[in-house]
Amino acid sequence: MAKATLTISSKTYSAWSLRGWLLCRMAGLEVEEKRVENNAANRAELLLLSPSVLVPRLTHQGASVWDTLAIAEYLNELYPQAHLLPADPIARAHCRSISGEIHSGFTNLRSALPMNLKVSHQKFPVFSGARPDIERIEAIWQECLSTYGGPFLFGAEPTIADAMYAPVTTRFITYAVPVSPASAAYCQTIAQWAPMVEWREAALAEAEEMEELEVEF
Amino acid sequence: MAKATLTISSKTYSAWSLRGWLLCRMAGLEVEEKRVENNAANRAELLLLSPSVLVPRLTHQGASVWDTLAIAEYLNELYPQAHLLPADPIARAHCRSISGEIHSGFTNLRSALPMNLKVSHQKFPVFSGARPDIERIEAIWQECLSTYGGPFLFGAEPTIADAMYAPVTTRFITYAVPVSPASAAYCQTIAQWAPMVEWREAALAEAEEMEELEVEF
Repeated sequence: MAKATLTISSKTYSAWSLRGWLLCRMAGLEVEEKRVENNAANRAELLLLSPSVLVPRLTHQGASVWDTLAIAEYLNELYPQAHLLPADPIARAHCRSISGEIHSGFTNLRSALPMNLKVSHQKFPVFSGARPDIERIEAIWQECLSTYGGPFLFGAEPTIADAMYAPVTTRFITYAVPVSPASAAYCQTIAQWAPMVEWREAALAEAEEMEELEVEF
Repeated sequence: MAKATLTISSKTYSAWSLRGWLLCRMAGLEVEEKRVENNAANRAELLLLSPSVLVPRLTHQGASVWDTLAIAEYLNELYPQAHLLPADPIARAHCRSISGEIHSGFTNLRSALPMNLKVSHQKFPVFSGARPDIERIEAIWQECLSTYGGPFLFGAEPTIADAMYAPVTTRFITYAVPVSPASAAYCQTIAQWAPMVEWREAALAEAEEMEELEVEF
């Protein structure tokens, strides 16, 4: 059978790519990574919202799935034993609610603090418009961690919600955003989560490669 | 057992409220409607993304579900006989992909052509930045209608995707956006869909009530 393919863009900068990739890893689905380079021509196509360059996109057994939450639900159906969603129906509805909230919202946070895994800013000025987003995210995490006991949002094992919020944890670390001790601990949980370590290492290798290319030109 | 509650805002202007309400109707879940008025104080809270005023919010059997796609998946689990998603796994992945795409995207369309069920503009200037959104939406519909045969996006019966795109069909009609004959026919299918007729009548009644109130003040 043909291998599954996951189309992603930069491992350093693409938060949506990271989410889709984490979901496949969590489900145990082996994917061949296909890279869409983030160059000017592709950016122009992205502006037209051409699905051909939207990332992430999973192709698997005849299905083409190009939205992160759609990929999550697709994998959850195919691999129930991976427990991508909490078993309890009320917790499951909660997990989907906060996953949906970040899927459609937090635009100020996204534009003010873009994901960037190769740098570290100690005194980055956080745009005040992003403050309500940060406060809301901390409230979401706090409620989950206190209700389900951590270290992941819905308890001992990661769920879709952790994949959805993983890029946020990297932003809080990259820009040294002051957060509560509970939020900081959650950011560390994600930073040390094996698939996240693997992705970050690949991102740093990619960044080095790009710099070498830039030197050559 | 306590009745389910669906928190919504304006029936005239709130596209998200419409989506959540249609999903409940499609699932056959009877809900008590709870209204959050769209006044200045609530708008201020909305800016802080307080979940207490996010709409739609479904409370049902101990679960609180406050994101539209989360509500869709919640209802699909509880009422599989309502067929909110296509039975075929590839069509189901397709349905979730386009539902996710409108959930997180098309921001130019949303701001350029806000939902408004009580007016009709024949020569509304469409902001050019919304053009790519309109073209992409037409391409999404075209692909679905030709693949699954219409009149709804995934065939003879409405699915989650129709609830997600329903507010767009009202915008195309409200602002007389020039679209292909196939798109125009789809807009009419949704306009004549029983739950949509019911919602629009309630919206018009609401609009009249508001105008009477304005006259009194």
